[in-house]
Amino acid sequence: VNPKQIAAEKAVSYIQDGMRIGLGTGSTAAYAVSALGRRLEGETLRLSCVATSMATEQLAQQHGIALETWDRIDRLDLSIDGADEVDPQFRLIKGGGGALLREKLVAMVTDREIIIVDDSKIVPALGRHPLPVVVTPYAWQSTQARLITHFGVPAPVRYAVDGSLFLSDDGCYVLDMAFGAPLPDLETLEARIKSIVGVVETGLFIGLCQHLIIGSSTGEIREQQMPRQ
Amino acid sequence: VNPKQIAAEKAVSYIQDGMRIGLGTGSTAAYAVSALGRRLEGETLRLSCVATSMATEQLAQQHGIALETWDRIDRLDLSIDGADEVDPQFRLIKGGGGALLREKLVAMVTDREIIIVDDSKIVPALGRHPLPVVVTPYAWQSTQARLITHFGVPAPVRYAVDGSLFLSDDGCYVLDMAFGAPLPDLETLEARIKSIVGVVETGLFIGLCQHLIIGSSTGEIREQQMPRQ
Repeated sequence: VNPKQIAAEKAVSYIQDGMRIGLGTGSTAAYAVSALGRRLEGETLRLSCVATSMATEQLAQQHGIALETWDRIDRLDLSIDGADEVDPQFRLIKGGGGALLREKLVAMVTDREIIIVDDSKIVPALGRHPLPVVVTPYAWQSTQARLITHFGVPAPVRYAVDGSLFLSDDGCYVLDMAFGAPLPDLETLEARIKSIVGVVETGLFIGLCQHLIIGSSTGEIREQQMPRQ
Repeated sequence: VNPKQIAAEKAVSYIQDGMRIGLGTGSTAAYAVSALGRRLEGETLRLSCVATSMATEQLAQQHGIALETWDRIDRLDLSIDGADEVDPQFRLIKGGGGALLREKLVAMVTDREIIIVDDSKIVPALGRHPLPVVVTPYAWQSTQARLITHFGVPAPVRYAVDGSLFLSDDGCYVLDMAFGAPLPDLETLEARIKSIVGVVETGLFIGLCQHLIIGSSTGEIREQQMPRQ
């Protein structure tokens, strides 16, 4: 049993005719796109979908899922995405795949954000996974220096597989801040990092997950729901 | 007498051999680049210069000013830039030209930021000029909606001369928030706007100007200095 896949299929079962849907990014979210594609082969669902990355756009097109443009959408009923860490309050670290900016923009307008993970992503406190921070390329070295000075932790720039600097879909670089767990001052940390000149967005998602689906390699699926804050 | 030009020439007179220099953007800053080019024809100055826009990069090259890369610079001794509004506390609205992100990144690492303006830019309180806010293109409509909801003022997207959306050098759009003067809660406004998901930077510059040079059409030049906060 693939824990990511069973969680993804469960999440896709909540999609109903007429819904506006946000499609997440990453290996777990990709299972959801595939599962939605299979549902669309068997039933007629009129959906308005948006994708959180160019990779997911391509995947959606491969699965026959039409995509909507943002001038025609102001809210989403349901979005399905993965996460790198989830704490007991449904707070998340996202951005290991580098799509956190678009994922956060989608989550912000989503009524029910379903986060699908395997049970290895559930943690008592966030921070073992580095916190991805999106920065503007211009003078990024000075932004990195400010982050290191302000927070006193390493903030290495992310590299792509080919050895060049990792460039996000939005043309930004990503710094992976190594706070360690537990993240300090979690409620204010997001605002403090975002306030730094040169920072575009952080991978901290607070109050943005309403529904958690956890797949286990034993085949068990656990679900937890939280009202939107 | 051109008030912008005489202010620019005064600012350039502070540039000394060995300095690291930030070159601003816009019509007033362009006079400074020209004036620096003329100085370099007559004297030998070893400078390390960075430009705050692609337009200024081109202008610098046309004037024989070599540009440095950010992996070789961590601080700047002196930068020269313009502003759309300046208040009595040296607080600025910048971004009418759309280069505010790079201008702010440069100002952040500058020991002496010299702002050069004609006297029409001096105001008792900021806000008559719209406040430019840089946003990410993806789902920018949702970011605009959040800004309008949070602040209750119009935030139209900026258009280029050709009728397309204005795109900054960093590939972002600009919303011009029409607060009106005086800007409310000036000290916290910058942080509040920046905290909105999708916002990259605001055109509010607080504590980032150390030296003001004001040119008048009468030929008078006034200077005011403030220690770095």
